Amino acid sequence: MVEKIAVEKKVLSENDRLAAEIRARLQEHGVVSLNFVSSPGSGKTSLLEWTLSTLGQELHIGLIAGDVQTENDARRLLRAGGDFVRPLVTGGACHLDAKMISRILAEVDIDALDLLFIENVGNLVCPSSYDLGEDMKVVLISTTEGDDKPLKYPGMFRRSSVMVINKIDLLGFSDFDMETVRKNALAINPELKIFQLSCRTGEGLDAWFDWIRELPTMKR
Amino acid sequence: MVEKIAVEKKVLSENDRLAAEIRARLQEHGVVSLNFVSSPGSGKTSLLEWTLSTLGQELHIGLIAGDVQTENDARRLLRAGGDFVRPLVTGGACHLDAKMISRILAEVDIDALDLLFIENVGNLVCPSSYDLGEDMKVVLISTTEGDDKPLKYPGMFRRSSVMVINKIDLLGFSDFDMETVRKNALAINPELKIFQLSCRTGEGLDAWFDWIRELPTMKR
Repeated sequence: MVEKIAVEKKVLSENDRLAAEIRARLQEHGVVSLNFVSSPGSGKTSLLEWTLSTLGQELHIGLIAGDVQTENDARRLLRAGGDFVRPLVTGGACHLDAKMISRILAEVDIDALDLLFIENVGNLVCPSSYDLGEDMKVVLISTTEGDDKPLKYPGMFRRSSVMVINKIDLLGFSDFDMETVRKNALAINPELKIFQLSCRTGEGLDAWFDWIRELPTMKR
Repeated sequence: MVEKIAVEKKVLSENDRLAAEIRARLQEHGVVSLNFVSSPGSGKTSLLEWTLSTLGQELHIGLIAGDVQTENDARRLLRAGGDFVRPLVTGGACHLDAKMISRILAEVDIDALDLLFIENVGNLVCPSSYDLGEDMKVVLISTTEGDDKPLKYPGMFRRSSVMVINKIDLLGFSDFDMETVRKNALAINPELKIFQLSCRTGEGLDAWFDWIRELPTMKR
């Protein structure tokens, strides 16, 4: 076990080195990058579809769509817009890592981009340990998952800058309490910026779009 | 990376050895064991609460409740019943392993048990690689997660014997299609036994309870 931990530390520090390179390269080109993380089925792809189709004309957005298996999400997202959408199939691995991102960035034109979105594998645990060189992690949680998730998976909420609470149209169909989830999340990470929205009805998306619109100016 | 894979293989084969020991010991005592796996928030704890409170008087059930952080689930389950409920907090790890189970089984009386339930960490990827010595994996999926999940996380559905589709009371509030999820799951694993139920309304639970009731006779 000691040997395993030592090797994992080595892998993580190699990952951090590569992530720092990616971060420097993106900053050099004025690209703001977001790493979207959540449980399977929280709505990452739906939120990204809305975002590309609404903002794809006014902003230059590149997207890397990670999945354990299938390129289905990438196909959905291709139809939505964006400067490019690249699938990234891990073939079983439980998270994306900096090497996978680096390989894709070597093949695409990031010079014209305002934003790079990365959709991680659906997993609330492992992706929290792997820096991809992003500016911020955006963690999604849906109202159908339960308001206790920040307490049970604290690593992800601690390392995220933004929490998107999706499926607010289903509030009232479970014991999920909005005040409880906010309190639980802010107890883990008082700096979290929080959005409440529904990718089904569109409610709350305007505030999200406005926030995204302002991101490219972050670095100017 | 080669070094990491070699070490992981060693860890997995050590895990398999321990899991085989656990399996032999449970079989010797006539205990049937189920390993419950799913995304965070699919309803493992709710299904186990129902099962303990309904069957806890007629069957001897032990439960190990795994979580990345907090003993909240174990506390909920303690109130429901069962011969024992033991929390197992991984402190960040993304799956349970055979060593953790072995350590708990050394401290409890399994002689009187009919059934051992293990609630794994909420994660559709990593727990699929770790045999805990169980007779079967039971994978839960909720209708709010999307009907594409078996295709995107095939490892877990391939290694499970049973699929429980939870939250059927929320059918119609998303694009989730029951026939599609069944087709997708059976394409990965044609042997899957499938239950459809709602832990909120109780619909469909009787068939689940009847199946559980018959498990102890499996080994007699």
